[in-house]
Amino acid sequence: MSSYGRYNSQSQPYAPSAPELPPPSSNYTPPNNYTQTSPPSSNYTQGYGYGQFSSSGYSNFPPGTNPDIITSFQMVDTDRSGFIDDRELQRALSSSFHSFNLRTIRLLMFLFKHPNESLRIGPNEFAALWNCLGHWRGIFERYDKDRSGKIDPLELRDALYGIGYAVPASVLQLLLSKYGDGSARRVELGFDNFVECAMIIKGLTDKFKDKDKRYSGSATLSYDDFMSMVIPFLVSYD
Amino acid sequence: MSSYGRYNSQSQPYAPSAPELPPPSSNYTPPNNYTQTSPPSSNYTQGYGYGQFSSSGYSNFPPGTNPDIITSFQMVDTDRSGFIDDRELQRALSSSFHSFNLRTIRLLMFLFKHPNESLRIGPNEFAALWNCLGHWRGIFERYDKDRSGKIDPLELRDALYGIGYAVPASVLQLLLSKYGDGSARRVELGFDNFVECAMIIKGLTDKFKDKDKRYSGSATLSYDDFMSMVIPFLVSYD
Ligand SMILES: [Ca+2]
Ligand SMILES: [Ca+2]
Repeated sequence: MSSYGRYNSQSQPYAPSAPELPPPSSNYTPPNNYTQTSPPSSNYTQGYGYGQFSSSGYSNFPPGTNPDIITSFQMVDTDRSGFIDDRELQRALSSSFHSFNLRTIRLLMFLFKHPNESLRIGPNEFAALWNCLGHWRGIFERYDKDRSGKIDPLELRDALYGIGYAVPASVLQLLLSKYGDGSARRVELGFDNFVECAMIIKGLTDKFKDKDKRYSGSATLSYDDFMSMVIPFLVSYD
Repeated sequence: MSSYGRYNSQSQPYAPSAPELPPPSSNYTPPNNYTQTSPPSSNYTQGYGYGQFSSSGYSNFPPGTNPDIITSFQMVDTDRSGFIDDRELQRALSSSFHSFNLRTIRLLMFLFKHPNESLRIGPNEFAALWNCLGHWRGIFERYDKDRSGKIDPLELRDALYGIGYAVPASVLQLLLSKYGDGSARRVELGFDNFVECAMIIKGLTDKFKDKDKRYSGSATLSYDDFMSMVIPFLVSYD
């Protein structure tokens, strides 16, 4: 049994569904599929956004997209090109979520953009990213047990465990030592760094899991596979 | 034969030796060993630095350390604690090398610092890092064929090949797409981003190679190994 094997467990009555990352580039499917696993909640006005801006490129939002998402996209896509860049995404998210730093923004874009596209995202990717962040915010609030507005190392461990990732303490410590002054134990993650850490753990674990079909805890990787799995999560120019 | 297998070749009369990264944390040996594979060049005044500052913690520089290195360290370590942090390292390197951005500085520190230490480095690590950057600068100048002061994607491929790393084009493209606007082909790397890219490729490849003793091009990794290999190279808070 592998130590990360909780994702196979059936007994998680309290666990929210883990936010979905888009599929890896090697198995890329059209962005419309991103949201199929998380249907819009009932208070989204079905059909509002879809088609409304069909003359200006906004017809690409998935049916039932939350109007807030469309409005946020529109506000920053001032030239109506149907795409937004990193600084525009930063502005779009700051009103509803958090003032993400550009480093986190570029990581998010890199994980959500079409692999053949340069660093910009369209309506579908934006909606998928928005929904993903909404999930992470719910998890952040649920596991910030002391309501400090920050996630400490134990809260992070519990949050990841709660969504099905039993990450060894040594791995979490190594990751957390990249934040703050390098002392993992004292690190407190705000929402942006929490999203970054959680998406790195989830993303790398999911990719590893894809290569470990039997959940044995180990996988055989080619050099190309290894590098291609890892690089999307690496440091990014900002 | 693996595609990254050039490091085993004997026929590279033109290849400079690849700069040494410190050993991985699992096999950590004292920093004094870092420089054993690259003896100081003959114009370094043997013994000058060593012992000169023995009363103030500077006795830890390896014998024969270039006096420029000691002076640079001293200039930023104003409290004579014998350690420097990220912003001090940034200042120390800017005089002789490059005005590295803090993101690159933190990656360098993370790769060179003692794994149990918080984000600060001492004389030995500083000397090792300095020598490593000197090697990379030589490689940068050698492979900047058009003397543009930047390394383009083909120059990067040749530079890595020259030091023994035959990296697949798809992997280099993926890495380069993290720089600039996401279009790998148009990226031109200054010295700081070149060092970052080259150390990422060299570091990850060396770690993979450690697990692929037969140079087969594939390796079996446990989940913990995989995560611990990768995280040091990940995005870092700045
Ligand atoms: Ca908390
Ligand atoms: Ca050039």
